Amino acid sequence: MSGIIKAKGGRSMAFRVYLSGEIHTDWRDRIRDGAAGLGIDFDGPVTDHGNSDDCGVAILGAEDDKFWHDHKGAKLNAIRTRKGIAEADVVVVRFGDKYKQWNAAFDAGYAAALGKSLIILQPEEHDHALKEVDAAALAVARTPEQVVQLLAYVITGTLPG
Amino acid sequence: MSGIIKAKGGRSMAFRVYLSGEIHTDWRDRIRDGAAGLGIDFDGPVTDHGNSDDCGVAILGAEDDKFWHDHKGAKLNAIRTRKGIAEADVVVVRFGDKYKQWNAAFDAGYAAALGKSLIILQPEEHDHALKEVDAAALAVARTPEQVVQLLAYVITGTLPG
Amino acid sequence: MSGIIKAKGGRSMAFRVYLSGEIHTDWRDRIRDGAAGLGIDFDGPVTDHGNSDDCGVAILGAEDDKFWHDHKGAKLNAIRTRKGIAEADVVVVRFGDKYKQWNAAFDAGYAAALGKSLIILQPEEHDHALKEVDAAALAVARTPEQVVQLLAYVITGTLPG
Amino acid sequence: MSGIIKAKGGRSMAFRVYLSGEIHTDWRDRIRDGAAGLGIDFDGPVTDHGNSDDCGVAILGAEDDKFWHDHKGAKLNAIRTRKGIAEADVVVVRFGDKYKQWNAAFDAGYAAALGKSLIILQPEEHDHALKEVDAAALAVARTPEQVVQLLAYVITGTLPG
Amino acid sequence: MSGIIKAKGGRSMAFRVYLSGEIHTDWRDRIRDGAAGLGIDFDGPVTDHGNSDDCGVAILGAEDDKFWHDHKGAKLNAIRTRKGIAEADVVVVRFGDKYKQWNAAFDAGYAAALGKSLIILQPEEHDHALKEVDAAALAVARTPEQVVQLLAYVITGTLPG
Amino acid sequence: MSGIIKAKGGRSMAFRVYLSGEIHTDWRDRIRDGAAGLGIDFDGPVTDHGNSDDCGVAILGAEDDKFWHDHKGAKLNAIRTRKGIAEADVVVVRFGDKYKQWNAAFDAGYAAALGKSLIILQPEEHDHALKEVDAAALAVARTPEQVVQLLAYVITGTLPG
Amino acid sequence: MSGIIKAKGGRSMAFRVYLSGEIHTDWRDRIRDGAAGLGIDFDGPVTDHGNSDDCGVAILGAEDDKFWHDHKGAKLNAIRTRKGIAEADVVVVRFGDKYKQWNAAFDAGYAAALGKSLIILQPEEHDHALKEVDAAALAVARTPEQVVQLLAYVITGTLPG
Amino acid sequence: MSGIIKAKGGRSMAFRVYLSGEIHTDWRDRIRDGAAGLGIDFDGPVTDHGNSDDCGVAILGAEDDKFWHDHKGAKLNAIRTRKGIAEADVVVVRFGDKYKQWNAAFDAGYAAALGKSLIILQPEEHDHALKEVDAAALAVARTPEQVVQLLAYVITGTLPG
Repeated sequence: MSGIIKAKGGRSMAFRVYLSGEIHTDWRDRIRDGAAGLGIDFDGPVTDHGNSDDCGVAILGAEDDKFWHDHKGAKLNAIRTRKGIAEADVVVVRFGDKYKQWNAAFDAGYAAALGKSLIILQPEEHDHALKEVDAAALAVARTPEQVVQLLAYVITGTLPG
Repeated sequence: MSGIIKAKGGRSMAFRVYLSGEIHTDWRDRIRDGAAGLGIDFDGPVTDHGNSDDCGVAILGAEDDKFWHDHKGAKLNAIRTRKGIAEADVVVVRFGDKYKQWNAAFDAGYAAALGKSLIILQPEEHDHALKEVDAAALAVARTPEQVVQLLAYVITGTLPG
Repeated sequence: MSGIIKAKGGRSMAFRVYLSGEIHTDWRDRIRDGAAGLGIDFDGPVTDHGNSDDCGVAILGAEDDKFWHDHKGAKLNAIRTRKGIAEADVVVVRFGDKYKQWNAAFDAGYAAALGKSLIILQPEEHDHALKEVDAAALAVARTPEQVVQLLAYVITGTLPG
Repeated sequence: MSGIIKAKGGRSMAFRVYLSGEIHTDWRDRIRDGAAGLGIDFDGPVTDHGNSDDCGVAILGAEDDKFWHDHKGAKLNAIRTRKGIAEADVVVVRFGDKYKQWNAAFDAGYAAALGKSLIILQPEEHDHALKEVDAAALAVARTPEQVVQLLAYVITGTLPG
Repeated sequence: MSGIIKAKGGRSMAFRVYLSGEIHTDWRDRIRDGAAGLGIDFDGPVTDHGNSDDCGVAILGAEDDKFWHDHKGAKLNAIRTRKGIAEADVVVVRFGDKYKQWNAAFDAGYAAALGKSLIILQPEEHDHALKEVDAAALAVARTPEQVVQLLAYVITGTLPG
Repeated sequence: MSGIIKAKGGRSMAFRVYLSGEIHTDWRDRIRDGAAGLGIDFDGPVTDHGNSDDCGVAILGAEDDKFWHDHKGAKLNAIRTRKGIAEADVVVVRFGDKYKQWNAAFDAGYAAALGKSLIILQPEEHDHALKEVDAAALAVARTPEQVVQLLAYVITGTLPG
Repeated sequence: MSGIIKAKGGRSMAFRVYLSGEIHTDWRDRIRDGAAGLGIDFDGPVTDHGNSDDCGVAILGAEDDKFWHDHKGAKLNAIRTRKGIAEADVVVVRFGDKYKQWNAAFDAGYAAALGKSLIILQPEEHDHALKEVDAAALAVARTPEQVVQLLAYVITGTLPG
Repeated sequence: MSGIIKAKGGRSMAFRVYLSGEIHTDWRDRIRDGAAGLGIDFDGPVTDHGNSDDCGVAILGAEDDKFWHDHKGAKLNAIRTRKGIAEADVVVVRFGDKYKQWNAAFDAGYAAALGKSLIILQPEEHDHALKEVDAAALAVARTPEQVVQLLAYVITGTLPG
């Protein structure tokens, strides 16, 4: 039984949650589906890998140099990601098994400096390497389902089970 | 008779009020019920004491050490309380008769540094101990009904009686 | 003919305007009535002089000392006025013929420090005494009707006549 | 195919876009028309050249000195332009073929200091002269249609063609 | 005996104090002289009344219209006063017996919005008219000597006598 | 052996540390003495209990009502404490065995909202009651000597022993 | 005779002034030389035109595309110019007779958004084109000597002649 | 020949530079040595790997759980790194060949959100993985010597060779 009913007369707070990081598994879907009914607005980056890489040259013209090809695309994506993080109450950053994922850690640092509530979703094997990131977080979760439970508790005061 | 009718053509300002502090009496209910009709959005912490204490380990896994048990829970609660305070126009902090209530005083300091309008609700016996907190407040009230009257005046310009 | 129609496809920007200062003439009504249809949200202080003076003691208990009587009331009023100014896009400050009106000048300074667009409404006889206030303003008007025309132009691009 | 559908369940982010600069061609219309359906709120300055120049004296009284004539008008326009830029997520600044266009560059600097996402729309011939402005931008486009494609990608994740 | 010696090992905090308001009596001298030895940096406006009124036209050229004559001067003075207030830890605002003194109240509001510690120096006869200003202050003093004692206490922990 | 020598060529960063809270034991002296040679600027409140309580009325005149007696004093002390916290890099807050110590928790909340690095110095018996405060801290220490070791490590990279 | 001597006991405020804009005449030298003795710290951009254009490729490697050649250089220069403007109390922006000078107007907008005191130095022929820039300024000067007199007045209270 | 001599009369701007990231090669020494004479204040993290990992438990007591062991240490290090980044004008982040280096990317994001001038030092092989980080930077360098040349140019206006 939740303490929010007493405190809030049944109405819940409205949260915006930005889902940053790994784009190759279905973790965003699992959080969104699990959190259905909590009234959360979810945002996130463009998760189509190809479009995300090529958007700059596809729209603004080709580049001979791969560095500028990447640069034009990364800047377009920044229009979306910075707004998404800046407007969020909570930023969830997921670190997966593969790739460098420096953009995920960059987003975490960016969110931390803006004072956002930070939740890191990571496998145990990365604990040591992520200790500085985790030190800035309000929660370190292992599964998308824990993130759902976290958000449900924060919004409704109800614990699982 | 209110001066707001003249100034506002009948429409009232929309306030968000965060109710911080003591969770063992019905003061939040008395303020919410008394202020019905003023169009105020009330927020507050999770007031289920048990859930509030155990949320961290219930969701993210048990801890052997009580310190980290508490730590994980307090951080989850911070996701809710910081958003609630940050979005409020007015933060009411209630100090009761029992317990240390350092989290209430912490919230008051947090709200003061953010420039929130602070109302302290306290019994006279605490006046000396709360003088630094009161010095940052715009009102010191003795009863929830005074808080209701305060909010009614601020929003509608009408005085009681 | 307005340039906004071309720029905006007919939709207007939504402004919040705070009306600060003199409370003894009908200038607020003239601005609100004149600006009907512009979609402006107007705010202002409690304009019932008696209630404004006595609100503190009426709600929180009498004071023997007139200084604290005034102090308690002025702080309650600050809950309303600071929110009103902080949320406004434009702050109009009216200086009339009588009284010290230091609260009006205080509001003007407060609004200026917050970077608000400031419009001063004043008779010519006060021009020299208000030169520092006017130096922080984007417009100095003589009549409420000019303020209406100003706001109409800013929102719709249309000039009078 | 867009990656946003996966990330967002079909709902799009809501952007505000301010269109600053050149007022003699139909570029604003082309962007607004092209972006119909993206749910963008567009703002911009008053684009009626005559009204924009004369608004100050038309409302607040004539000036003998052309400098103060211009000054009164420019300040009224600032009430609109500063709010428009301050509330925007994205500021598009268009540099055309003629005139000094210092107000466009001023708006770009103003937006950059506020941390807005800046898109510059300029012909190649101005590339060298605009290099400091471009260095603060997230995109440099050549046509209004590219701006539309940019915004469509940022909001929906979809690339043209 | 001061508690600062214990807390600070003899070294004092370094304060900047801005002295705003009335320029016709020797109150600034009395505070500066009384506070000699406290290591305070005092700032204030230009207090030569004539220079302060005419600086704009004397340097930038004459104006036919008195309004612009005043305007040019007030803006030049703002270069100094805003820096002085912005850099101060404490802003003392003195209200005297004569004149409108709206610039003093404007400075008080400006300082309050910046979160400065505000001390108001005023005769009792102005108490009611200054109640909104006093509500934002941390002290209301009657004499320059009280201001000196205040500053001495804040810096050294020592009380008079 | 420290890693700072390599990183800094021997020169140390300059820290300001504010020591808030309990004023009845010698913990401030032990930290200041222990940290001699680290180049730290220490600040703190007035620690003479009597002066701190009576400063308001001693300087600004007596009050019949104990509430206003306390109020005037608490506001004077705020001139010092807010500057001290605002300028600090690190705020150490000490909770002792006795008294309500709400001013200490208030300072902790105030410092947290300003983004200061917070160190809490507390006996184990208070761990549960301080969990919300500790959740905002970067370290929870048990002895003043640990605080010294912490500061020494942060500034020089050297560990004890 | 200055009013500052009375107000300040002979000591002057310390100003930082950033000199932005046109780099082909000796206006910076004339201001610096004229202001010798006022204790002003002057900053400005790199004024060697060739170095300023080529710095990016000279240090970080050549680019085939002129756009990226310019881009790399403009970003390096931004490291200097943004710090210079951000730290300045006063930003003087000079518009000359030639070139587009969009970087000057960009700097003016950037400084305005940061709340800097802005002085524009411009020939009369540019008055209409610069009206939006001038509307954000505290002074519009015609000669470097007027800027010197302005700064001398602001710092010492003394008028020329 | 530098343009700064003309602009600055020989005096250089004073920069603070924070050196973040990889701690296993001598890149910090090469930058510090190369930049000797430029008057730069360099900061950085504790670079003794062992001390950095163990500082938390060495000072505040052992932890059974490796997660909390790391957590206590990472928080202590944050006291130093956040101050270092917050006070820097320029943040250089070095990505090396090994390890996850998420703390480096976190620092880059943190610095970007604070508006710091960001220089990334990276081998070409990481260009694609770092494109989001580079998009927020003002320069991407390949060698410590290029960083030295960059800083020399920014401070003195002189190009190499």
